[in-house]
Amino acid sequence: MKEIQQRVLAFRDERDWKQYHNEKDLAISISLEANELLENFQWRTSEEAIVESKQNIKEEMADILIYLVQLADKLEINLEEEVFDKLVKNAIKYPVNRSGEKVK
Amino acid sequence: MKEIQQRVLAFRDERDWKQYHNEKDLAISISLEANELLENFQWRTSEEAIVESKQNIKEEMADILIYLVQLADKLEINLEEEVFDKLVKNAIKYPVNRSGEKVK
Amino acid sequence: MKEIQQRVLAFRDERDWKQYHNEKDLAISISLEANELLENFQWRTSEEAIVESKQNIKEEMADILIYLVQLADKLEINLEEEVFDKLVKNAIKYPVNRSGEKVK
Amino acid sequence: MKEIQQRVLAFRDERDWKQYHNEKDLAISISLEANELLENFQWRTSEEAIVESKQNIKEEMADILIYLVQLADKLEINLEEEVFDKLVKNAIKYPVNRSGEKVK
Repeated sequence: MKEIQQRVLAFRDERDWKQYHNEKDLAISISLEANELLENFQWRTSEEAIVESKQNIKEEMADILIYLVQLADKLEINLEEEVFDKLVKNAIKYPVNRSGEKVK
Repeated sequence: MKEIQQRVLAFRDERDWKQYHNEKDLAISISLEANELLENFQWRTSEEAIVESKQNIKEEMADILIYLVQLADKLEINLEEEVFDKLVKNAIKYPVNRSGEKVK
Repeated sequence: MKEIQQRVLAFRDERDWKQYHNEKDLAISISLEANELLENFQWRTSEEAIVESKQNIKEEMADILIYLVQLADKLEINLEEEVFDKLVKNAIKYPVNRSGEKVK
Repeated sequence: MKEIQQRVLAFRDERDWKQYHNEKDLAISISLEANELLENFQWRTSEEAIVESKQNIKEEMADILIYLVQLADKLEINLEEEVFDKLVKNAIKYPVNRSGEKVK
């Protein structure tokens, strides 16, 4: 994660883009990229989407993570720790003995 | 990134959830979580959202990354490498000497 | 359409909400409601979603149209005419003799 | 509303597209179009977006309504009545004497 952060933020800072990055628009960007990812699956099964558009799927996933890293930097949060904290919280909500049950 | 992947996939596998995870629904999940993140900014400035909802913002960001990692695992792609590849591609699209220009 | 507009805008104006309704946040609202609609289909087939959540599906669809009408009012556009114009444009893009072909 | 429905469904049926229209993908389409609408507001104020992109904003709004009408047809629901029902429900949730309060 550290190397992703370094490279993403270096890319941003070489272009002096941080000044434009307010958190609300970064959240909008994440939704837009998530929908560009989803567009690959429209009118298709998962299998069709992967056969026809795997390269674009990968790029949209990268875009989402790039924006997440930039939003985390603006908010001064550690994305890795947030994931670990969320997994602890989810483990309480979905204890292991309910395994096999459909995730919401 | 490796530790995030290990913990996210361990969480999933302890609950035997991989069987439900088709790629199309994971892409839907990412869009839903992105909109739950965005909901914190509705009718608010960035500043208001951060003051009133920083904890939820952090959790929704974690959820997005958790689903990204699970989708990457299903697709057998290396999310870290995808980000590096995308940055190379973006660097061609947005060369440094155009710095200061508004990002799309 | 006229009666929908009258009732939606009367509802808004009785509560004096127009003052809060900037176009950017209304566009965010439409995306949020669209994702609440989509949430009913997550991890489900269309058939399962309809059996289990038809009432919620209907309500989320109503919410989207309610926000569309409010955004149209703010922009001073006639939503009905916009649909007719778009159908003309789409008819050029997808002429009838290509019928049966999969829509993008 | 009736004329919108007639023209949208005639457009669809002339192209024999109903066969492809499952409800889950129509819900995905609405989210995608909502994000194409939202894209016009990314990195911009409402005012900037309207000056620079009003035509596209109008077209994306039309696309959302076109998909809503098609989903309503598949579900055999009356979109107009759904809006009226939802307004009744919202009126209970937000009584007029709480007017001036910020909508969620």
